[in-house]
Amino acid sequence: MLSPSPNSIKKAFSRVALVGKYQADGMQEHLGDLAKLLGQQGCEIFIEASTAAHLSLTAYPTKKIETFAGAIDLAVVLGGDGTMLGIGRQLAGSQVPLVGINMGRLGYMTDIPIQSVQTILPQIIAGEYEADTRTLLAAVVLRNGEEINRSLALNDVVVNRSGISGMVGLAVKVNGSFMYNLRSDGLIISTPTGSTAYALSAGGPILHPRVAGILLAPIAPHSLSNRPIVLPQDIMVSIEVVDGREIIVNFDMQSQTHLQTGDTIQVRQSEKTITLLHPRAHSDYKTLREKLHWNEYPSTF
Amino acid sequence: MLSPSPNSIKKAFSRVALVGKYQADGMQEHLGDLAKLLGQQGCEIFIEASTAAHLSLTAYPTKKIETFAGAIDLAVVLGGDGTMLGIGRQLAGSQVPLVGINMGRLGYMTDIPIQSVQTILPQIIAGEYEADTRTLLAAVVLRNGEEINRSLALNDVVVNRSGISGMVGLAVKVNGSFMYNLRSDGLIISTPTGSTAYALSAGGPILHPRVAGILLAPIAPHSLSNRPIVLPQDIMVSIEVVDGREIIVNFDMQSQTHLQTGDTIQVRQSEKTITLLHPRAHSDYKTLREKLHWNEYPSTF
Amino acid sequence: MLSPSPNSIKKAFSRVALVGKYQADGMQEHLGDLAKLLGQQGCEIFIEASTAAHLSLTAYPTKKIETFAGAIDLAVVLGGDGTMLGIGRQLAGSQVPLVGINMGRLGYMTDIPIQSVQTILPQIIAGEYEADTRTLLAAVVLRNGEEINRSLALNDVVVNRSGISGMVGLAVKVNGSFMYNLRSDGLIISTPTGSTAYALSAGGPILHPRVAGILLAPIAPHSLSNRPIVLPQDIMVSIEVVDGREIIVNFDMQSQTHLQTGDTIQVRQSEKTITLLHPRAHSDYKTLREKLHWNEYPSTF
Amino acid sequence: MLSPSPNSIKKAFSRVALVGKYQADGMQEHLGDLAKLLGQQGCEIFIEASTAAHLSLTAYPTKKIETFAGAIDLAVVLGGDGTMLGIGRQLAGSQVPLVGINMGRLGYMTDIPIQSVQTILPQIIAGEYEADTRTLLAAVVLRNGEEINRSLALNDVVVNRSGISGMVGLAVKVNGSFMYNLRSDGLIISTPTGSTAYALSAGGPILHPRVAGILLAPIAPHSLSNRPIVLPQDIMVSIEVVDGREIIVNFDMQSQTHLQTGDTIQVRQSEKTITLLHPRAHSDYKTLREKLHWNEYPSTF
Repeated sequence: MLSPSPNSIKKAFSRVALVGKYQADGMQEHLGDLAKLLGQQGCEIFIEASTAAHLSLTAYPTKKIETFAGAIDLAVVLGGDGTMLGIGRQLAGSQVPLVGINMGRLGYMTDIPIQSVQTILPQIIAGEYEADTRTLLAAVVLRNGEEINRSLALNDVVVNRSGISGMVGLAVKVNGSFMYNLRSDGLIISTPTGSTAYALSAGGPILHPRVAGILLAPIAPHSLSNRPIVLPQDIMVSIEVVDGREIIVNFDMQSQTHLQTGDTIQVRQSEKTITLLHPRAHSDYKTLREKLHWNEYPSTF
Repeated sequence: MLSPSPNSIKKAFSRVALVGKYQADGMQEHLGDLAKLLGQQGCEIFIEASTAAHLSLTAYPTKKIETFAGAIDLAVVLGGDGTMLGIGRQLAGSQVPLVGINMGRLGYMTDIPIQSVQTILPQIIAGEYEADTRTLLAAVVLRNGEEINRSLALNDVVVNRSGISGMVGLAVKVNGSFMYNLRSDGLIISTPTGSTAYALSAGGPILHPRVAGILLAPIAPHSLSNRPIVLPQDIMVSIEVVDGREIIVNFDMQSQTHLQTGDTIQVRQSEKTITLLHPRAHSDYKTLREKLHWNEYPSTF
Repeated sequence: MLSPSPNSIKKAFSRVALVGKYQADGMQEHLGDLAKLLGQQGCEIFIEASTAAHLSLTAYPTKKIETFAGAIDLAVVLGGDGTMLGIGRQLAGSQVPLVGINMGRLGYMTDIPIQSVQTILPQIIAGEYEADTRTLLAAVVLRNGEEINRSLALNDVVVNRSGISGMVGLAVKVNGSFMYNLRSDGLIISTPTGSTAYALSAGGPILHPRVAGILLAPIAPHSLSNRPIVLPQDIMVSIEVVDGREIIVNFDMQSQTHLQTGDTIQVRQSEKTITLLHPRAHSDYKTLREKLHWNEYPSTF
Repeated sequence: MLSPSPNSIKKAFSRVALVGKYQADGMQEHLGDLAKLLGQQGCEIFIEASTAAHLSLTAYPTKKIETFAGAIDLAVVLGGDGTMLGIGRQLAGSQVPLVGINMGRLGYMTDIPIQSVQTILPQIIAGEYEADTRTLLAAVVLRNGEEINRSLALNDVVVNRSGISGMVGLAVKVNGSFMYNLRSDGLIISTPTGSTAYALSAGGPILHPRVAGILLAPIAPHSLSNRPIVLPQDIMVSIEVVDGREIIVNFDMQSQTHLQTGDTIQVRQSEKTITLLHPRAHSDYKTLREKLHWNEYPSTF
């Protein structure tokens, strides 16, 4: 009996782009294997342009990430959460869903181990998946009332002191109402996605990805009663730099703007989202348990 | 010129019940003043039955709290957050809104100082207010699959060890999916309202009342990586007691059930809510600042 | 060539007592092997009386733990930190050093795995060891000025609420000077040894065993600025119960006294100590790393 | 009857230097009043040279701080804890004790309010005081095995990332034994004096000034189990920079050195100390209560 022609396979996604963290060992081979596997599913394969350039991959057509919208049905990302973060920000609002594949170390977003792709990717291509929509933050930096920068963030917008200044003084408002003055190392404004990243190190809570909220977590606040707070997703937070030298605002710790006293950062939830696809029966809690060693009690006694 | 007849005053609430924490000093006099003030607004005044009984108030008709629904338009509560908590649980789902008046110490829910009632209460009666709807948790305690108790909680459902047992071992599931095993002093399942109460002492974040989420905050967890987590409001948490002696589940720290190994507590958001009324231009952040000393930086340096 | 007669082996310890946690699987066999091993080193072997009774060990003479002082040169304890804690309290001041052997799960005090005893125990018997002296706390409970109980603690003295009371109110003095009022779930007064136990779960720091200090760690304090404090070892802490019902003071979570309002617990460092023996090149930091997963970074990103 | 000649007054300190934070309002007048008051006690008055220069004080002889040792019996510092910190570092080992006077805001080290100097300073001059000796840290920065900088710190030695780098990776050893790898915003090595400063904001415990220990407090560590640790005062901590860009080491947040990967900072307790003088019946706990709002419970409920 003949195997079915690839083009006759029922598939939810036809045009698939592969994106890889090109510094990682074995990336070229893994991408080649993935392309072959997806080709067997009847998918049309593209390699993201800079991935292809760095890895000298020439066997497939390339496509720039800014042209994915409308031209690509699925982006398969090979790397860690940092890679996913960068790609996610660029694909926000593009309607292109992402699948994250890790090369050994489980990620919150790159939850499929490379060893399992032969089983899992065909299922996802066939439409067997769980969609997981993630919100982003939209930040605008104002100086003297003029916009000097704007950026999206999938994890967090972080205002922080540099190493040479002792602290930053911030005045924080919510929807125009004064919330607090903060003297600290900085302030993290985080999505639920970012709640397991820097904000967690700063003492913040974990927010399930479906919680409609924005997390504010102060970093090493001078006032001991200054605790993380979760705000509704429809609010606008504005942070004014009132004190400190060499203050910086970081977006996903991947891009940044140097700030001056008097500058204000306005942060709200973006209208753009990204969608991650997980295997059926995916469990966020399993990932948390594994990454945070939740099951290994007792550790202190 | 004549002053308007009370009955001709435009008013949003006609039938008003007064509830007071009867142990507090000066309560009798304060309630009398409030009744007079509300009478001047054209309201029909009732005294909550147990308040009246304890304070020997006979000048107004009394009404039992379980009969407020449909018969009372507004409950004015005089006391602290503890009083409000008890009344709030009883009025959940009754459609009777609450106004909280404190006798000196600002409360999160009892935000109107007794000194300001002459100005603020007439405004609220006239319809000048901000409504603030609070969610409750509905908990069911199961033993051998049979329900042995159920309760609402406006602040929190707390499973905790007694003083004589060393710890409690809990297995926690969300919507039937295993989340974690926890060895600790206990676990707090909290509403946004409860996030500023016990959960805050246990290291939890503050949740704005409008955040649609349920907070889980472990108390002194053995595993250091066991952090507070905010879950969406539509989930069901089940907590099974797997280890420990003399374990107790508390509802708002006001009622409780003794547990045995194998007992399970199922907690979800109740369909019932309560509504607090605040003066116009009320600011949750102002209350937080005042109660948590947020503005008094720096305290550590 | 003849092997040396056991009695001619140079040894630092002649009379060795074996103590075992008699509920543990395989304990009887392990103790038998240990006795044989120590006998080969020329030691005179005793089995601690209750261990012998529970395990029906009759091959060796037994000795009650309260008679070890002067009659035993070394106690070898097989079990976990909980076992060690109980034995340690009883041997405080006896001048009998302890060696802790675990049966698979590394302990802070039971740091020698059973698999390594063949190599390590002969070295220790031969005098190749590192001595590690641990302090204890001496607590006195006063009611109406009369002593109603006294106890030693190797880990901690814990004053805590029971599950049914909402909190405990404590007034804390140091050397008679008022330090603070505390409303909380309780207060842990801990030795450096206890700093990796309950106090760590409550947010306390780790104290190296050689730090001459006493740690006070509040449990879920109402006041957010109430932080753990390390006091010099020569002070006396007194804790008065000023509020709360069914309050309990626990000693190493192994014995306890029920308290009333007005009762005072006085805690100071005991003059008695215990001494743990470790293999040469023992590293406290290695134990901490292993037990606390310190080396497994990053866990949050 | 004649008042006693100033020179005949019994006094513990004859030659007194005045040091002031010259940016503070009213400093010139306050220093003038202090000089007059001390003169009335029969003291010989000197104004610290840079204080005199900035404030154009010419009525008294000036003296450079580096010449205090042997020439000055007491330094009276007017300002906040930051001023005290700078002066304290310079006077370490000089045997010149310090008195700290604040101008309204209580400091941990500047504990005497300006309003009380008329009463308190004469008592201190007369020998009525409590001496409070503080330890310092001595840090050496090594690059390729060569010392590139050394500094004392009265509060803390802080290794931290700059605002533009995402984190710093550090390998920490104690007395040459590996303790842990740390990925974080940085690491604070603190004296007991510094435990109420930056380390407290980073989640560290308070160390009583008499505790003989060195505190290590990680700043926003990636690993959630990475807790503050108190080490004995006789150890040497070495911190190697293994990862990160634009890393900085700060001494009391007042001077700093830029670091490269591979640089190592060695920190140990200095042989030099400083001595603060407090009024009789001084209470560290009173200062803590006042600065940390310890007595204002309950704040969360």
